[in-house]
Amino acid sequence: MSEDNVVYVGNKEVMSYVLAVTTQFNEGSDEVVIKARGRAISTAVDTAEVVRNRFLEDVEVEDIKISTETLENKEGGESNVSSMEIYLKRGN
Amino acid sequence: MSEDNVVYVGNKEVMSYVLAVTTQFNEGSDEVVIKARGRAISTAVDTAEVVRNRFLEDVEVEDIKISTETLENKEGGESNVSSMEIYLKRGN
Repeated sequence: MSEDNVVYVGNKEVMSYVLAVTTQFNEGSDEVVIKARGRAISTAVDTAEVVRNRFLEDVEVEDIKISTETLENKEGGESNVSSMEIYLKRGN
Repeated sequence: MSEDNVVYVGNKEVMSYVLAVTTQFNEGSDEVVIKARGRAISTAVDTAEVVRNRFLEDVEVEDIKISTETLENKEGGESNVSSMEIYLKRGN
């Protein structure tokens, strides 16, 4: 799930991603990026909000980026999916 | 669905919101705000991306804000829900 300071959000419960993000910060990261695609984007926003409101109140949203990725689907064709990156940073 | 230059995203198809946003821009708005809560946040991102990539390529994402709203649920209790605002602006 983690690669350096990136947490990829999929279909698990919000709390498993909240744990992953808080662990990254507690292990010394100053910045953690939450990445998600498609339906998981809502879970990524939930994760950022729960981390900030209930666990690490000094963490701020530094930036949010959205984009479109083209994926190859099972039939070999291509389909577009929205993706989002939420940059969380430890406040000074 | 629209209030000045705001488009509220709910459970409809993405294209109905894409139409609402493009109509706002075509009627002369320079900025349109897409607002959504909870699961509809993913649809809001899809809407912004489809508008920018397939309909109005000069429209840019000016800002994205996330927050938590406390809502009263049917039993009279309170529950938190994530919300998002995507600020789209016509490029110069």
